[in-house]
Amino acid sequence: MSTPAPPPGKANSSSDVATKYFDEAYRMCVHYLETLHAEDEHMKIVLKRFRECNDYNVPGGKKTRGLTAVRSMASFKEVPPNDIEYRIAGVVGWCLEWLQASFLVHDDIMDNSVTRRGKTCWYKQEDVGLVAVNDGLYLQSAVYTILRQFCRGQTWFRDVIDLFLEIQSNTIHGQALDLESSCPKEPMEVRLSLGRYKTIAKYKTSYYSFVLPVRCGLYMAGISSDEIHDLATKILLEMGHIFQVQDDFLDCFGDPTVTGKVGTDIEDNKCTWLVAKVLQIDNENILQILKENYGKSGQENVARVKQLYNDLSMVSVYKTYEEEAFDELERIIKQQNILKKEPFLNLLKLIYKRER
Amino acid sequence: MSTPAPPPGKANSSSDVATKYFDEAYRMCVHYLETLHAEDEHMKIVLKRFRECNDYNVPGGKKTRGLTAVRSMASFKEVPPNDIEYRIAGVVGWCLEWLQASFLVHDDIMDNSVTRRGKTCWYKQEDVGLVAVNDGLYLQSAVYTILRQFCRGQTWFRDVIDLFLEIQSNTIHGQALDLESSCPKEPMEVRLSLGRYKTIAKYKTSYYSFVLPVRCGLYMAGISSDEIHDLATKILLEMGHIFQVQDDFLDCFGDPTVTGKVGTDIEDNKCTWLVAKVLQIDNENILQILKENYGKSGQENVARVKQLYNDLSMVSVYKTYEEEAFDELERIIKQQNILKKEPFLNLLKLIYKRER
Ligand SMILES: [Mg+2]
Ligand SMILES: [Mg+2]
Ligand SMILES: [Mg+2]
Ligand SMILES: [Mg+2]
Ligand SMILES: [Mg+2]
Ligand SMILES: [Mg+2]
Repeated sequence: MSTPAPPPGKANSSSDVATKYFDEAYRMCVHYLETLHAEDEHMKIVLKRFRECNDYNVPGGKKTRGLTAVRSMASFKEVPPNDIEYRIAGVVGWCLEWLQASFLVHDDIMDNSVTRRGKTCWYKQEDVGLVAVNDGLYLQSAVYTILRQFCRGQTWFRDVIDLFLEIQSNTIHGQALDLESSCPKEPMEVRLSLGRYKTIAKYKTSYYSFVLPVRCGLYMAGISSDEIHDLATKILLEMGHIFQVQDDFLDCFGDPTVTGKVGTDIEDNKCTWLVAKVLQIDNENILQILKENYGKSGQENVARVKQLYNDLSMVSVYKTYEEEAFDELERIIKQQNILKKEPFLNLLKLIYKRER
Repeated sequence: MSTPAPPPGKANSSSDVATKYFDEAYRMCVHYLETLHAEDEHMKIVLKRFRECNDYNVPGGKKTRGLTAVRSMASFKEVPPNDIEYRIAGVVGWCLEWLQASFLVHDDIMDNSVTRRGKTCWYKQEDVGLVAVNDGLYLQSAVYTILRQFCRGQTWFRDVIDLFLEIQSNTIHGQALDLESSCPKEPMEVRLSLGRYKTIAKYKTSYYSFVLPVRCGLYMAGISSDEIHDLATKILLEMGHIFQVQDDFLDCFGDPTVTGKVGTDIEDNKCTWLVAKVLQIDNENILQILKENYGKSGQENVARVKQLYNDLSMVSVYKTYEEEAFDELERIIKQQNILKKEPFLNLLKLIYKRER
């Protein structure tokens, strides 16, 4: 699962309107969630817990996914959206943030992480622990509770619900592959290959972080053509791949005070872009170093892997990859004539050379 | 979360047809789930994992919930169902079993349980551990994957999807209250009160175990009237309450070789019917014994609580409650003229004096 993406400051100018409506929608969603079963006095303690869980886990990210849904809706529409359309897009945007929060709460448990968004992980909080499993389920179910409350009357309601369900399933498959690939029962060359990496990134990150927000925007703009959704998906999966490569790079080489979390991919034996790239080099010595040190929690093991990355100039290999991948995707977006180019180019700009 | 209910032997005679179609539907569901993303060779290892997860967790229960959906559909229809109607009801029935499996996998993690259905809990298996969090999410998402694949064309499709989503949310609220009530931050008299107990049982068990299967049956029989669904819900919540009282009784006084699990409610500080009933007695000495021993894992503490239950003849208090509660509910079912009585009476019979 990936970090929240880049600072809102980088966003394009038209985003101010989106941001305004988006911020307002959070309160509306939370208020509704707190009315559920509130007629039963015994539920008060649960509603209090869930309020804390929401406030701790949902709004603290960069909100790129949520804002992308609102901005996409506005860009894809033929005429400027009215107040109501903005407000309801804000609600859908927040559903993306709730979904993301649920993934992160569960992911941190399984990855045994310590910090997230500059704070202690939810499950690591005193008084939380493994009850966080149910809290994560709550965050996920809130997506559908909110959608069913605020979007039921919309023509696109069923398409959006189905899309959330489908992409949630994809993400769970991606998480499973990510976790399987950290398990030493397969040989290193298989489980940390670049082919495996591409599948992991696609399923665990790209679908929910890029495909879902933009396709929600398309549906909300009244666009449901398969041709358009298919091409958008193709482009957004590419964008998600770049985003996950950046996430892996930042896990190792990023500044924790900027990313908000301390990287543990090496210790966790993760199939990252860095290790997959290094393993592409057919060299017995490299394989030996990785076999001895990758996936071990000792400081000296982690340092040895990082030294290997430095010896192989992985920072420079990454910068070259990033530059070329962005250029190539920009070219693909500009070359086609089926989709409006601007929302895709803006989104690409938003993650360009991101540092968190 | 409750155990699987009574032996299929107790079922009524018309159930053989239901059982036949139901058993066949499992293979169909699993086969479809295994085609998902199978075009990507890297996903093979995930599909293998999920197959094992399904086979370990989904079909090993008593399947009361699933069979109830099929039987209800058949009972509520004006004319006997045809092959296709039975087959598709079987699929919906299995969705209930998948949902139940997802709840149980997560519940066992949070309750730190050891055995389930006579086997080691999934998360306790070697090679599983906390990745079981994602496996539970998979089991849950399978519900919607299956429904969207096999039931999309049905007139009742959207009603059933919405019902699953709503009742899943209710169950998560119930689990939260169950877990909060085990936490000593509230005074014992508050968190283990009979009022609190009623709310827990309703939300964590009755909705998904009784309301969901029968209401699915109603929808599949073409019945969607609010009046009918509301009265059915009222009756089924009562039935679920009795079922949870039985579950709590069996946790303490049942035979583990019959129930398939070793009870830990006393150690886990759970708000059970037994402790709530005992706490109703206004007696300082009882309160003192519970404060000193309830929620402690020492064998002598558990034994002291069980001795208290024996001193207060809780087995006999339970038998009286069970008898009276069944009589009362039977009376309510027979008294009304809005719902067909037979499916409700059969379901009630199915749980009468159950031992597992
Ligand atoms: Mg990462
Ligand atoms: Mg992870
Ligand atoms: Mg992680
Ligand atoms: Mg129990
Ligand atoms: Mg439990
Ligand atoms: Mg339990």
